[in-house]
Amino acid sequence: MNELPGTSDTPLLDQIHGPKDLKRLSREQLPALTEELRGEIVRVCSRGGLHLASSLGAVDIITALHYVLDSPRDRILFDVGHQAYAHKILTGRRDQMADIKKEGGISGFTKVSESEHDAITVGHASTSLANALGMALARDAQGKDFHVAAVIGDGSLTGGMALAALNTIGDMGRKMLIVLNDNEMSISENVGAMNKFMRGLQVQKWFQEGEGAGKKAVEAVSKPLADFMSRAKNSTRHFFDPASVNPFAAMGVRYVGPVDGHNVQELVWLLERLVDLDGPTILHIVTTKGKGLSYAEADPIYWHGPAKFDPATGEYVPSSAYSWSAAFGEAVTEWAKTDPRTFVVTPAMREGSGLVEFSRVHPHRYLDVGIAEEVAVTTAAGMALQGMRPVVAIYSTFLQRAYDQVLHDVAIEHLNVTFCIDRAGIVGADGATHNGVFDLSFLRSIPGVRIGLPKDAAELRGMLKYAQTHDGPFAIRYPRGNTAQVPAGTWPDLKWGEWERLKGGDDVVILAGGKALDYALKAAEDLPGVGVVNARFVKPLDEEMLREVGGRARALITVEDNTVVGGFGGAVLEALNSMNLHPTVRVLGIPDEFQEHATAESVHARAGIDAPAIRTVLAELGVDVPIEV
Amino acid sequence: MNELPGTSDTPLLDQIHGPKDLKRLSREQLPALTEELRGEIVRVCSRGGLHLASSLGAVDIITALHYVLDSPRDRILFDVGHQAYAHKILTGRRDQMADIKKEGGISGFTKVSESEHDAITVGHASTSLANALGMALARDAQGKDFHVAAVIGDGSLTGGMALAALNTIGDMGRKMLIVLNDNEMSISENVGAMNKFMRGLQVQKWFQEGEGAGKKAVEAVSKPLADFMSRAKNSTRHFFDPASVNPFAAMGVRYVGPVDGHNVQELVWLLERLVDLDGPTILHIVTTKGKGLSYAEADPIYWHGPAKFDPATGEYVPSSAYSWSAAFGEAVTEWAKTDPRTFVVTPAMREGSGLVEFSRVHPHRYLDVGIAEEVAVTTAAGMALQGMRPVVAIYSTFLQRAYDQVLHDVAIEHLNVTFCIDRAGIVGADGATHNGVFDLSFLRSIPGVRIGLPKDAAELRGMLKYAQTHDGPFAIRYPRGNTAQVPAGTWPDLKWGEWERLKGGDDVVILAGGKALDYALKAAEDLPGVGVVNARFVKPLDEEMLREVGGRARALITVEDNTVVGGFGGAVLEALNSMNLHPTVRVLGIPDEFQEHATAESVHARAGIDAPAIRTVLAELGVDVPIEV
Repeated sequence: MNELPGTSDTPLLDQIHGPKDLKRLSREQLPALTEELRGEIVRVCSRGGLHLASSLGAVDIITALHYVLDSPRDRILFDVGHQAYAHKILTGRRDQMADIKKEGGISGFTKVSESEHDAITVGHASTSLANALGMALARDAQGKDFHVAAVIGDGSLTGGMALAALNTIGDMGRKMLIVLNDNEMSISENVGAMNKFMRGLQVQKWFQEGEGAGKKAVEAVSKPLADFMSRAKNSTRHFFDPASVNPFAAMGVRYVGPVDGHNVQELVWLLERLVDLDGPTILHIVTTKGKGLSYAEADPIYWHGPAKFDPATGEYVPSSAYSWSAAFGEAVTEWAKTDPRTFVVTPAMREGSGLVEFSRVHPHRYLDVGIAEEVAVTTAAGMALQGMRPVVAIYSTFLQRAYDQVLHDVAIEHLNVTFCIDRAGIVGADGATHNGVFDLSFLRSIPGVRIGLPKDAAELRGMLKYAQTHDGPFAIRYPRGNTAQVPAGTWPDLKWGEWERLKGGDDVVILAGGKALDYALKAAEDLPGVGVVNARFVKPLDEEMLREVGGRARALITVEDNTVVGGFGGAVLEALNSMNLHPTVRVLGIPDEFQEHATAESVHARAGIDAPAIRTVLAELGVDVPIEV
Repeated sequence: MNELPGTSDTPLLDQIHGPKDLKRLSREQLPALTEELRGEIVRVCSRGGLHLASSLGAVDIITALHYVLDSPRDRILFDVGHQAYAHKILTGRRDQMADIKKEGGISGFTKVSESEHDAITVGHASTSLANALGMALARDAQGKDFHVAAVIGDGSLTGGMALAALNTIGDMGRKMLIVLNDNEMSISENVGAMNKFMRGLQVQKWFQEGEGAGKKAVEAVSKPLADFMSRAKNSTRHFFDPASVNPFAAMGVRYVGPVDGHNVQELVWLLERLVDLDGPTILHIVTTKGKGLSYAEADPIYWHGPAKFDPATGEYVPSSAYSWSAAFGEAVTEWAKTDPRTFVVTPAMREGSGLVEFSRVHPHRYLDVGIAEEVAVTTAAGMALQGMRPVVAIYSTFLQRAYDQVLHDVAIEHLNVTFCIDRAGIVGADGATHNGVFDLSFLRSIPGVRIGLPKDAAELRGMLKYAQTHDGPFAIRYPRGNTAQVPAGTWPDLKWGEWERLKGGDDVVILAGGKALDYALKAAEDLPGVGVVNARFVKPLDEEMLREVGGRARALITVEDNTVVGGFGGAVLEALNSMNLHPTVRVLGIPDEFQEHATAESVHARAGIDAPAIRTVLAELGVDVPIEV
């Protein structure tokens, strides 16, 4: 395989405008097609910010599935959905790949409203199996007979809801195919015992018989399948052992594999025989993340979502920006050096949450639970019950998955767990599934959870210090993006719940925290009557300062990078109402609808929370403002 | 065993005021002690409303654990916590059992703030393993050496977060004991493939060797363990097969079992040998729910939480009350007869959600996914994507576990999923872990989810009809408790989002929905100036009526059986603010703190939302009210 797979010459791909065109190719042409697909994906991804490595790894199975199945009649589900670039290209969206994840362009994930071939709208992991079960049950209830096939990575499979779904899938016994795309990776290195077990499967292998009609079908196919498997030169190690038991079989799901996930012709042969079996079947394929691109195969963690690069050489300019994630990672690594109670837990986001250094410096106080947010939060609760002060590092959108664990396992006993919530607010290119614009609302309603929004890295450190030295749960949320680095040893004192007056002006006062504060300050520049408060605490609010500004100002403007429903603005309205103060209040935030992918700045402008939007509101309130366009 | 286990004569139990006293007994005395415990539990539970069957089933393992381990130094965790009555009795709370679950009395679950012996505060299932992992990691980080033992039922083990936690437990390899208390039941009949598998374990059996130090320890104990197992007459079927693989072993967890969970001496023998093994160990015990009480053994579903009964005979007066659950069950069963798209999904709450009849009448459109709320919601999403109109029947407190699935899997694509949310509001005796007082807040922030609170069974039917005939997600929430039955065929037309003026009066207007509406009507009785609006829709609000009453009334009172943070009152404040209306608004609801167990009425009185409390507020607002005491 070449350094750069494929060529810019794509004679086969040029003929394909949908799955029907694919089926016109002979199966001997498929390997060449997958090479063309790889080249296309590398070219698209070289612009940066796209999901390269996982999409390269899934090219062959996607091609085989579309060759054998009949989408959209048959439903093909992709767990997480970021590995489905080949699927997008093969289903008529090749021309739109240039604008993938850009505003107005197609989504980086599968999306029902984008194409009839996208079976689910997705972005979070481990949801495909429950969705597939629902589709199979609907199909059977309707007396229809289409196929349902879900492609799920080994990292996603170990998420709780995927395992629990498998339990019900095995129980219900409906016809469906689960392709376990085993690349030994989630986004970081895979962790967990199931992962070790799957490695074990690669040196053993099972074939578990089904029951009833399924059993018969299996018997019919067993012999040729066995012959096939023993022939398949590229299928590294494999055999059948009907008597053996593996966890999938224990769950009542027929297991086939492992097979080479990059031999497209063999995959086609196998799928043709498996899709018509009754009951649920798992096909375990072994793939290589970044397949076909030597530098991506060598470092699939970096090449999961690389920056802009030269496709021929893999050269790229490492980012010199200092991210909020890095600021958090540095802070917690430093803090833990003097505080032996600090223990960091992440659900599979070591790199994304800035924890690589922490995991090296404090390996015995670092835990990656894999893609299992509920487990991350409740494991932290258990640590807190034994006197530790765990920090859960988690993206806002994924904390949604552990709402009950925050409430039931942490908050009821007011445990010392600190949530460091990254990617809060609009995240941009990942779009609706990933925006972290609900955390202020859903966390605020949980008794005892205090919420802070640092304006910079120093304030983040101040909040972290406060949280790690005071009792009860704290949530510190900060956005995707960059901030200025601060020197080691920066540990400012602050009092939780105390806002900060950043700019005088008593006619109209803008209350904003975190990223929204930057907009507020910019909007208020040169406007003497307009004050700005760093409303860095959403719970509790600084009631004293609120009473003061609420009683004096003609109007208040709240600005937040969170839904306007029940968020910071709602908190201010509730507090003012309790104080029996009724100034004019304009609540600015993300509207009550899902926001599609675009740059964060663009979404903020549309949502009406950026500086020009705030100035427009100031003008509506009668402030003499030169409105910029 | 007698019809009524034990006697009122409790010579052994009388000596036990804590685990230390238990250890003074000889192990030959333990069977007699467990009989006394059973008698005590039956007497306590005969008053009704307590968790009888599961507590009887766990008597022997609890006795053995406290005999072998050293609580509170050693940590004993009970998943869900409702099976731990024997634990409460043995740890000094025998005298308090008479008031268990009553206001001011001890909790029906384990609760950290109640006793140093209660390792976790719990009520929701499947959390014990992650908590135990956190405790083991904390212990090792602190260089301590206590034991951690978690008791988890087979129903709870198949919850996603338990399976996912097991994955990390196996990976981390820390010393801990997991007792799988396998009674073949959750609250309803168990479902799921893992359940079938565990049944399989009872006719096969495995013993999986550990690694390293653990392996050595296992070898040391294997021979006597094998001898023991072959001797153990009551341990139905068992053997060791180090070469075999089971799902637990696949997860990296040593597996021992199954053994008879009611032979306390054998359990002690076994625990003494297992607790010091390195790494994680699962001890699979087989128990009988309701053990020792013939009528409870015969019908453990009813006797899970029976009404008041005669302990000698098991006689009880069946409740003649008509519950909201029954109203829902009747409605959806009837509706589904003419709407083939309706499919009901429950997470292990067939009885509790009133679905027994539905599961009989529409077996092919009924799915119980077990204790796996995330799977319930996303399976429904999959059905909706294929043209069905699934109804997820779920308790409010358990819907907390599927917040992200509602948001990510249902709401983003605005799928036709209806959530029928039972036990919304204060539930009473089950207390803080079970109160459903957050749903209005957390659902309201999700774009496109419409929320209704029926005032009676007819309105519930009207809302269900509306939801099943209009697109997008709907949530219908109703309380624990009773309502009046309505005739079959009652399908009133209503328009979602339209409130109902129930009582004239324009000086002060009370806005309330659901259970709070009853209080509002009572409070406003005979007060001509006080109006009452059935604010039966929280999303969207009836903005027209709100504008009208908000513009005319001197004051509004919002009342809700939900937290005051970001709930219905918050929605009204946000809407009024957008309308630039500023009447005096008093927001009544559940205060921003967790509410302990007591009758719902008592909690409502303390929270200040019942009729007398509303009248007090009316008086404060200057309404001429005779305040009742």
